[in-house]
Amino acid sequence: MSSDPTIFDAILAGDIPCHRVYEDEHVLAFLDIAPLSHGHVLVIPKERAAQMDDLSDEAAAALGRVLPRLCRAVMSATGCEAYNLLQNNGAEAHQAVFHVHIHIIPKFADGSGLGLKWNSRELTSPEELASAIQAAC
Amino acid sequence: MSSDPTIFDAILAGDIPCHRVYEDEHVLAFLDIAPLSHGHVLVIPKERAAQMDDLSDEAAAALGRVLPRLCRAVMSATGCEAYNLLQNNGAEAHQAVFHVHIHIIPKFADGSGLGLKWNSRELTSPEELASAIQAAC
Repeated sequence: MSSDPTIFDAILAGDIPCHRVYEDEHVLAFLDIAPLSHGHVLVIPKERAAQMDDLSDEAAAALGRVLPRLCRAVMSATGCEAYNLLQNNGAEAHQAVFHVHIHIIPKFADGSGLGLKWNSRELTSPEELASAIQAAC
Repeated sequence: MSSDPTIFDAILAGDIPCHRVYEDEHVLAFLDIAPLSHGHVLVIPKERAAQMDDLSDEAAAALGRVLPRLCRAVMSATGCEAYNLLQNNGAEAHQAVFHVHIHIIPKFADGSGLGLKWNSRELTSPEELASAIQAAC
């Protein structure tokens, strides 16, 4: 939950270069330097927040707004037809830089892209759980 | 890229029940019936679009806007500190219902949650790639 400066602040300030693909008042997007596939892009808010739960509603809306446009651009430039959006929160969830970032990760027929392990389980006590989340909203 | 009706249209219409956790003019959120972990929630736009690249900017902004609030509510109700947001586009990227949906997936110390396989590769021709995506934006 830290909001200490990260390497993304240095990128936003222009002190560290990036391969920029998009920028507006609220958002910057650039190539991931260790991509999972060709066209792997990171989309970050200019507002500093470690996790999605720390981000302002306005910054989150601005981040959401550019996703369709950026996804179409990545598809157009790479020819990918499938892709994953991923946003990790917390080291246990594979977050490495503690500034909110959304990965756009093209998935190609050669298998490059995001690999998922999908172990579904039974839904238990759904009424209680849904009520608890609803009450916390 | 189909925008045919899906089971989510039936849920939005109230013809199929769901364990609702949040609803506003643009967005519905409910429990995933085959969760990867306790508190696994789906967030969908009311606008029908198969993939993120099909979604209107306005619907994408509304979807983004509610994420901080929903993430905080899931954390509060489940006690999770780490979580992943995932949005799959295309069958090859593990999309099963062809209506945009964002998974909020808590990650717990028992290992329940989203499993990721992270095979980074070298970034090749970044200037050309970034220019091509930028031009397509």
